Amino acid sequence: MTDLESRLLAEIQAIRAVDCHSHVPAESPHARGLADLLGYHYYTELAHSAGMPAEAVAPSLPEAERVAAMVERLPTIDNTVQYGWLMEALRDLFGFEADRLTAENWPEADRAIADAGARPGRYREVLEASNLEKVFLTNAFDEDLSGVDRDVFVPCLRTDDLVFQLAEAPVRERLAAKTGVEVGSAAAVREAVGALMTTFVEQGAGSAAISLPPDFAPTGPDAGEADPLVARAARGEDLSSDEARRLAAFVFEALAEACRDAGKPFQLMIGVLRSVYPAGVAGGRDLFAKTGSLHQYAGLFNRYPEVDFTVSVLARTWAHELATYAWIFPNVKPSGHWWYANVPVHIEYELRSRLEAVPKGKLIGYYSDMYKVEFGLPKFGMYRRMLARVLAREFVEAGRMDEAQAVATARLLLRENPKAIFGV
Amino acid sequence: MTDLESRLLAEIQAIRAVDCHSHVPAESPHARGLADLLGYHYYTELAHSAGMPAEAVAPSLPEAERVAAMVERLPTIDNTVQYGWLMEALRDLFGFEADRLTAENWPEADRAIADAGARPGRYREVLEASNLEKVFLTNAFDEDLSGVDRDVFVPCLRTDDLVFQLAEAPVRERLAAKTGVEVGSAAAVREAVGALMTTFVEQGAGSAAISLPPDFAPTGPDAGEADPLVARAARGEDLSSDEARRLAAFVFEALAEACRDAGKPFQLMIGVLRSVYPAGVAGGRDLFAKTGSLHQYAGLFNRYPEVDFTVSVLARTWAHELATYAWIFPNVKPSGHWWYANVPVHIEYELRSRLEAVPKGKLIGYYSDMYKVEFGLPKFGMYRRMLARVLAREFVEAGRMDEAQAVATARLLLRENPKAIFGV
Amino acid sequence: MTDLESRLLAEIQAIRAVDCHSHVPAESPHARGLADLLGYHYYTELAHSAGMPAEAVAPSLPEAERVAAMVERLPTIDNTVQYGWLMEALRDLFGFEADRLTAENWPEADRAIADAGARPGRYREVLEASNLEKVFLTNAFDEDLSGVDRDVFVPCLRTDDLVFQLAEAPVRERLAAKTGVEVGSAAAVREAVGALMTTFVEQGAGSAAISLPPDFAPTGPDAGEADPLVARAARGEDLSSDEARRLAAFVFEALAEACRDAGKPFQLMIGVLRSVYPAGVAGGRDLFAKTGSLHQYAGLFNRYPEVDFTVSVLARTWAHELATYAWIFPNVKPSGHWWYANVPVHIEYELRSRLEAVPKGKLIGYYSDMYKVEFGLPKFGMYRRMLARVLAREFVEAGRMDEAQAVATARLLLRENPKAIFGV
Repeated sequence: MTDLESRLLAEIQAIRAVDCHSHVPAESPHARGLADLLGYHYYTELAHSAGMPAEAVAPSLPEAERVAAMVERLPTIDNTVQYGWLMEALRDLFGFEADRLTAENWPEADRAIADAGARPGRYREVLEASNLEKVFLTNAFDEDLSGVDRDVFVPCLRTDDLVFQLAEAPVRERLAAKTGVEVGSAAAVREAVGALMTTFVEQGAGSAAISLPPDFAPTGPDAGEADPLVARAARGEDLSSDEARRLAAFVFEALAEACRDAGKPFQLMIGVLRSVYPAGVAGGRDLFAKTGSLHQYAGLFNRYPEVDFTVSVLARTWAHELATYAWIFPNVKPSGHWWYANVPVHIEYELRSRLEAVPKGKLIGYYSDMYKVEFGLPKFGMYRRMLARVLAREFVEAGRMDEAQAVATARLLLRENPKAIFGV
Repeated sequence: MTDLESRLLAEIQAIRAVDCHSHVPAESPHARGLADLLGYHYYTELAHSAGMPAEAVAPSLPEAERVAAMVERLPTIDNTVQYGWLMEALRDLFGFEADRLTAENWPEADRAIADAGARPGRYREVLEASNLEKVFLTNAFDEDLSGVDRDVFVPCLRTDDLVFQLAEAPVRERLAAKTGVEVGSAAAVREAVGALMTTFVEQGAGSAAISLPPDFAPTGPDAGEADPLVARAARGEDLSSDEARRLAAFVFEALAEACRDAGKPFQLMIGVLRSVYPAGVAGGRDLFAKTGSLHQYAGLFNRYPEVDFTVSVLARTWAHELATYAWIFPNVKPSGHWWYANVPVHIEYELRSRLEAVPKGKLIGYYSDMYKVEFGLPKFGMYRRMLARVLAREFVEAGRMDEAQAVATARLLLRENPKAIFGV
Repeated sequence: MTDLESRLLAEIQAIRAVDCHSHVPAESPHARGLADLLGYHYYTELAHSAGMPAEAVAPSLPEAERVAAMVERLPTIDNTVQYGWLMEALRDLFGFEADRLTAENWPEADRAIADAGARPGRYREVLEASNLEKVFLTNAFDEDLSGVDRDVFVPCLRTDDLVFQLAEAPVRERLAAKTGVEVGSAAAVREAVGALMTTFVEQGAGSAAISLPPDFAPTGPDAGEADPLVARAARGEDLSSDEARRLAAFVFEALAEACRDAGKPFQLMIGVLRSVYPAGVAGGRDLFAKTGSLHQYAGLFNRYPEVDFTVSVLARTWAHELATYAWIFPNVKPSGHWWYANVPVHIEYELRSRLEAVPKGKLIGYYSDMYKVEFGLPKFGMYRRMLARVLAREFVEAGRMDEAQAVATARLLLRENPKAIFGV
């Protein structure tokens, strides 16, 4: 690392970031033991990929057995960036200084985590150490948000089941229970979805969010077209796959309208295919296909100029489209580096490509996607280092920014843009 | 920048380049005021993307108002490479030394541009300062070329409307007026297109050129198949979208034949979708989709071994195909870095990939695509720096070329290849 | 190159590698003259792409004439990495120290190659100098393997013609002659294919291998569905393209079963289109299309958890899917950098992406794909340098590995993983 890069990194580490997408559970945000870290799907799926039977970490097993199995397998994945996150979290958050986790030393790490985890408000300590001001949650539409610590957590309405499972009776029942609306018509769908959004925003929500398969097309069917589909779904009738697609597109559209009416962004996470590898470990079964195009969303972006669509794409092949659509559409904002794209080599390329051709005020640099707050430090740490590298090499050394401008740009990406875009 | 890179850059800056694709208007090639620079679609579209209403730069507004609106918004896009082009042009061509354009200083810049622009032959000064020997124009098929300064400008027959709008009466009328041929049959299309090409070449044209959507397939329908389509189009009858596609493919084929007969290259610019964002600023409404494949063109490349197809692709996902088809097909020549791919991060990768596996004599390094000659300097400047970087890091330092070979290679890309390929 | 990179490279060059894919002919593995090197399709196709008529290297011409034609054209391709392979092989294997091959000096190089080639066991000298322990061959299913020098060569069952040409009578006849099975039914196909695999494994084969077009989908038709197709093909009846596709999918499935039963990997080389440029030189007519998705193979990977699929992809657009499917599926192992992806710029990116997110024990670093053993040295040399660069810059300098770990990782990629995966 050059001196310049080190200076920039020091400044970037001092930026109090906002994390606009995570799966942290409000009621149990921090780790209580090593199992909470090693149970993160990245570790179990990589260890399984490297040869560990999925059964070795079956939820039915005692925690210590699962941890021991994982510790035994860690050497098989110690080249990965995800392994690096683990060791960085252990060292920087728990003072665990050993080079490796071993059969001998893991109980010590486990105890350190348990001791820290028992302290009241431990998650606030962790966020403080991670220099994260706020972390978005991912909340089911009927989740009780009353216990959320709104000083540091921001609710976010997750909408996958509404869009893709409205034909399932339990989803409609949960929706009716939450909103008082039985969704038997297109109008009722709009009413229910609007009510959810209003409730969520009243409780401090920053946005709605959804993950989408690569072939999803928000075709924006109108209420007249959707009405019979909603009615039939509500009666428990089967829909053809094409009808199911149109129903999903209608619910999606109702959500976009609700975002518009509530003045909140819609987080689109595009590209995932669920359960491609059903025999995998929990959380390690989904993949993606590189097919499709952001052009499928052009109509949506045109229909809702008032809505900020913060967009993440899973396949690298979509990345150029994302940066370019954000260059042209005022309401398209590239957001972070999602899941299978959350790897330094891809981050470095895409970060540079966004910084070189998208207005800086539109870029949401990073989010953690984490399940426990402990991963915010190493994940944002990785991103902060990439940011320092790209700003140093391609902007400051190239004479396109001075150091102060580079740091100000980093501050936009890490903090000011998410705060402004999500209103938090 | 290392000493090696600096030495190479100095040599590369001394190469008198040929710019084989621009939109410079022959009758008004250089800027007359700041509005001519800030009106470039890159600035208006990026400022709009960053929040400026499109109406702030409506053509109906007084020029000074538009300029003031743009100057106010420049800080929102000052991270972009396009912003860098602007400031480099102002400094190096107009001696404007301030760090930024401001509400206070922009009239000064405006005056400097107006003063320079009033000097006779100003565009020649600019090209001289940019070390550009010749710049290709993009000419409508019925444009009067008599006033073109052929010492520095090279006409180029733009053919988009012929291929995609022959069913429109005004296009056929313009064609008849220009060539004397009423295109009521396939044979007449060939005759008219051949006549255009002949006329253009007589007036110094370097090539024909066309931009194409990602799903275009040059299927090469024969005259027998095309005849009824041409006839119906000529009678004003509606064509189905499939018929329109076949008509377009036929006109395209006639152009390929005309290029063959005239011994001139056909510039293919593949991938654009028009008016994806209709509410955008002028010039800032088009985008692309990453779908499709250069394999769609394999038949064409096989049918016309005598024609040089100089190919640009808009989507990065097509770049590997382009470099590889150029590696195999003698008549496929990768050309520059077009529009949304004209960003350092993509240029660096693609330039390296072409230099590592495509014969050097086939590479057209760069073209400006500019609308005013003032952008030749910073755009080619950006490319010259990328060229110095890639040659230094991947060729000279890696022991694969010595410095003289690296400079000779750069000379091919910037000058000798376009001169040889286009015969200028 | 930094000191660190040099140190790593020295260690990496000392690793005795295993080359799991080549086209070296067992009966004539090393070069007997310059024509054997310059006749490699990379040189003839690149020279042809740069303007040399294909006829200049027609097989009917005297060897010296072909060599002279190629030597004359080498300056047109001296920027390419493939040219670098040639000169490195000449220098390091034949002591040819001139900077260039010329009309004057090529006979000298030719004699040096002929002299060396006449020495008994010359190919072993070459492999020794290249630090290659073993090299896989590519064998036709009815090839006589008795003469293979099994100390250094490993047979591999090439299966393209079985899968894609079973409807051709000569293929079925060769199969019957080899296995004694007339393939008139689905069961007979399975029997014949199983017998082939058994025979090959008895003779030391490391795997089966196949190259596939980008739209191939291993849909796994069952025997009942395939039976009438096999029967009709056996009677010489024409199959529709859809039927041919299903027949191919069935034979492919039988091969996957045979790999499972034999406990051997299946090398999948995905993406090639044959004879896209029929007028090209021999070996220089195939290309690819970037379309399709590794998702087409998800069912296969699920059906055969016991089979290691070592996967290469030809189009860069598939690379992210490959690294990611290997991250999730235990039985998907990324293998090398194939053909049009075998270029430093792509290797550097993909190598980094695999090392950052795929368990290290699953990565097959490289294979040569060579036709004469002389190319193992420069091709592996190129890869060794990329490996040193990526490990130095992204792992050791970044603090994610120490030097010993980096070297150990390189040893996995070059040697230990292929040995373990293929059991050689």
